[in-house]
Amino acid sequence: MSMEKAIAQGRAHQAQAVESLKELIRIPSISTYSEHAADIRRAADWIAERLRALGMRAEVYPAIKHPVVYAESSEAGPSAPTVLVYGHYDVQPAEPLEEWTSPPFEPTQRGDYLFGRGASDMKGQLIAQLAAVEAVRATGKLPVNLKYLLEGEEEVGSPNIKAFLLEHRDLVKCDVVLNVDAMILRPDLPSVVYGLRGLAYFEVRLFGPKQDLHSGLFGGAIHNPAQVLCELIAGMKDTQGRVTLPGFYDSVRRITPEERASLARVPTTDEDVKRQTGVTQLRGEAGYTTVEQLGARPTLEVNGLLSGFTGEGSKTVLPARSMAKISMRLVPDQTPEAVQAQLEEYLRRNAPPTVRWEVQNLAGAPPAIVRRDTHEMGAAIRALKETFGVDPVFMREGGTIAVVGILQELTGHESILMGFGLPDDNLHSPNERLFLPNFYRGIESYIRFLYALVV
Amino acid sequence: MSMEKAIAQGRAHQAQAVESLKELIRIPSISTYSEHAADIRRAADWIAERLRALGMRAEVYPAIKHPVVYAESSEAGPSAPTVLVYGHYDVQPAEPLEEWTSPPFEPTQRGDYLFGRGASDMKGQLIAQLAAVEAVRATGKLPVNLKYLLEGEEEVGSPNIKAFLLEHRDLVKCDVVLNVDAMILRPDLPSVVYGLRGLAYFEVRLFGPKQDLHSGLFGGAIHNPAQVLCELIAGMKDTQGRVTLPGFYDSVRRITPEERASLARVPTTDEDVKRQTGVTQLRGEAGYTTVEQLGARPTLEVNGLLSGFTGEGSKTVLPARSMAKISMRLVPDQTPEAVQAQLEEYLRRNAPPTVRWEVQNLAGAPPAIVRRDTHEMGAAIRALKETFGVDPVFMREGGTIAVVGILQELTGHESILMGFGLPDDNLHSPNERLFLPNFYRGIESYIRFLYALVV
Repeated sequence: MSMEKAIAQGRAHQAQAVESLKELIRIPSISTYSEHAADIRRAADWIAERLRALGMRAEVYPAIKHPVVYAESSEAGPSAPTVLVYGHYDVQPAEPLEEWTSPPFEPTQRGDYLFGRGASDMKGQLIAQLAAVEAVRATGKLPVNLKYLLEGEEEVGSPNIKAFLLEHRDLVKCDVVLNVDAMILRPDLPSVVYGLRGLAYFEVRLFGPKQDLHSGLFGGAIHNPAQVLCELIAGMKDTQGRVTLPGFYDSVRRITPEERASLARVPTTDEDVKRQTGVTQLRGEAGYTTVEQLGARPTLEVNGLLSGFTGEGSKTVLPARSMAKISMRLVPDQTPEAVQAQLEEYLRRNAPPTVRWEVQNLAGAPPAIVRRDTHEMGAAIRALKETFGVDPVFMREGGTIAVVGILQELTGHESILMGFGLPDDNLHSPNERLFLPNFYRGIESYIRFLYALVV
Repeated sequence: MSMEKAIAQGRAHQAQAVESLKELIRIPSISTYSEHAADIRRAADWIAERLRALGMRAEVYPAIKHPVVYAESSEAGPSAPTVLVYGHYDVQPAEPLEEWTSPPFEPTQRGDYLFGRGASDMKGQLIAQLAAVEAVRATGKLPVNLKYLLEGEEEVGSPNIKAFLLEHRDLVKCDVVLNVDAMILRPDLPSVVYGLRGLAYFEVRLFGPKQDLHSGLFGGAIHNPAQVLCELIAGMKDTQGRVTLPGFYDSVRRITPEERASLARVPTTDEDVKRQTGVTQLRGEAGYTTVEQLGARPTLEVNGLLSGFTGEGSKTVLPARSMAKISMRLVPDQTPEAVQAQLEEYLRRNAPPTVRWEVQNLAGAPPAIVRRDTHEMGAAIRALKETFGVDPVFMREGGTIAVVGILQELTGHESILMGFGLPDDNLHSPNERLFLPNFYRGIESYIRFLYALVV
């Protein structure tokens, strides 16, 4: 009965939750640019204040780069389980700015959508979860104890969270880990993510002549580092879309026939992906379905290219240098360390002696797989089914949440991934948006999950 | 005798010539950036004023983009030949600025060198020629009539000079064309350029997804336009360094055994080119010497690459677009129009249907070859031999001077290319510089050339 009251309370206060979310989006907490450090701090303080308003002891820990917000409530008493809620309050850069219809940090509602950087990834999920706790407390007693661990470096690959937690192991003692940095497949179909890809992100730099040369005076006798970069990148994939780094697939876990059948139930179609991305044809690794390519197979992507003159008009230079940002999404049992070694071995074997190369590691995270037969997974499935009225499907997600592996190591618990973003929310892209009906279902699902844990 | 007096006068006023050059370098007349239009205009006015001080009628003609400076003097009288001096007063952009030891537009003398953008290409050559005329007039009478045609768009490929001259055909009526936008091989070895490569400069743009995508959510099923660009560029050359665009070599004039023997006398060694460029190994088209690769064979170079995220740190995007600036140096009898058709045919054949592509033509100029047996060529050879004390060698230059072909068409005269830049002057690069002893020999050579024309 108290759950029904809480759900009604949540529904009655949806507009307040949206206003609260808008406040948080207005803080441009971009973690990759050092000039936004003050905004990151402001966002951390804002959230800590909200947590205190929910009766929690909250603290903003200065970490190596951006602070960690931690909070806890033990009002459910020592016999109740403790749920650790993980999330992040940082966002991706908003460039290219000229492609946004409304400014990225001025949240704007158009129809059923709220537009703004971080609306879906993941300030919206965080505010939905907080609104759920608020509704429960306004109508009764929290059925569980709560801990919050909210970091400010997720969008740069969570480089420091592990070191922080190793220093503060007691903070994450818990019975259940709830990670709200997640999404579902369709507004009418809840889904449970049980696999996440890992990440290995590099900057590869090539050095040729000592400086940019006149392409007329020297063109024809000098190996052009932009040309060499293109040749090296071209060689990193074969005609079947397979990655050619030596040993890249050696530790990739094969997809079993059972898993293949389960993934075939994921209703994402090629047409869905084309519509979401605007491409006319898909192109992936031969021999795998699109759902498998996106979640269960590793990738290599060029994230950025830069060399020579890229301004207006023409400049006849033969560039001295070239640079590519290249990242791989990993699946069990690949590791970022092994992939770096494979990339370096590829360059050793294939880079010509006419250029010097270097590789800088910019981010890394292991892949993760979560078991589907635990008590807390059951609670999640029940909460989703009761909110949406249909059975959730199981899926593997293409994105990376570094902390899932880290928390598993430090708490002994696999994470329940429960968030309500959608594939066409334009995550990391211009015009990021949140589908508000899903935001409201998110609040309700989080309420149900808290109660389901103690049934 | 009057020539000897003029030479002595030129020597006595070397310091003034350097000061004059510094004044001109201080005007950042960068033609490729529209925000420098006022500087371009200022440089044009400054030169027109100098020409008037030499007793000439000078005019600054507004052209389509940047003005043309024209001047004439008929003080030698109707029986004397008329020499048309061609040059340009615009310069290349100075980026990357952080690699300059002293600011590009604050000319700085260190040892025998004057550093600054345009010092060698080609404000130094222009000022040397003007100093020669000044010395002749200060000590006697000009032996020839003079016309000056100085444009402000050479560094962006001279896109409008032909249209301008077609409207002002009378301006370029002359008996001899002297193009001072040229260089020699070594400070102690004069050389005569009789061949110039042409240019065809393009921007190739690829379009994939409608916007930058999250590389985790979509990586693995979408053809990445940065990867496709690399594959296309990699395929534009084979393992022998040959360009693979269909038909690229069809109209390339073969190097005859006689020309091969003459080019073998050019004293440029592989070690020279390595020292000038800072590379440890050269790499060019198989089957040709470095001198042939640099002057007598066509090239394809990537001048710039841009795609996705290129800022600080990591951003996990799958880019929506990619761009390359690609230019070809052409030799007789290639044409920019044919090369554009070859590039487009290559893309039609090789670009996958997963991307859309477009090609923009940014600059083009035909290649040129000049006969070596004319009266004015004899005068140039004599002037150089007497100044330097050694026979000049004949060479083909890798760079492009679009106007040589245009002036040949409109005046009926091939150009005498006589300038005194050096291969290691860092043209188009940071720390462009002028070797001052060569600047002084340039003044003397130009004086001798004027007198030699009327012997």
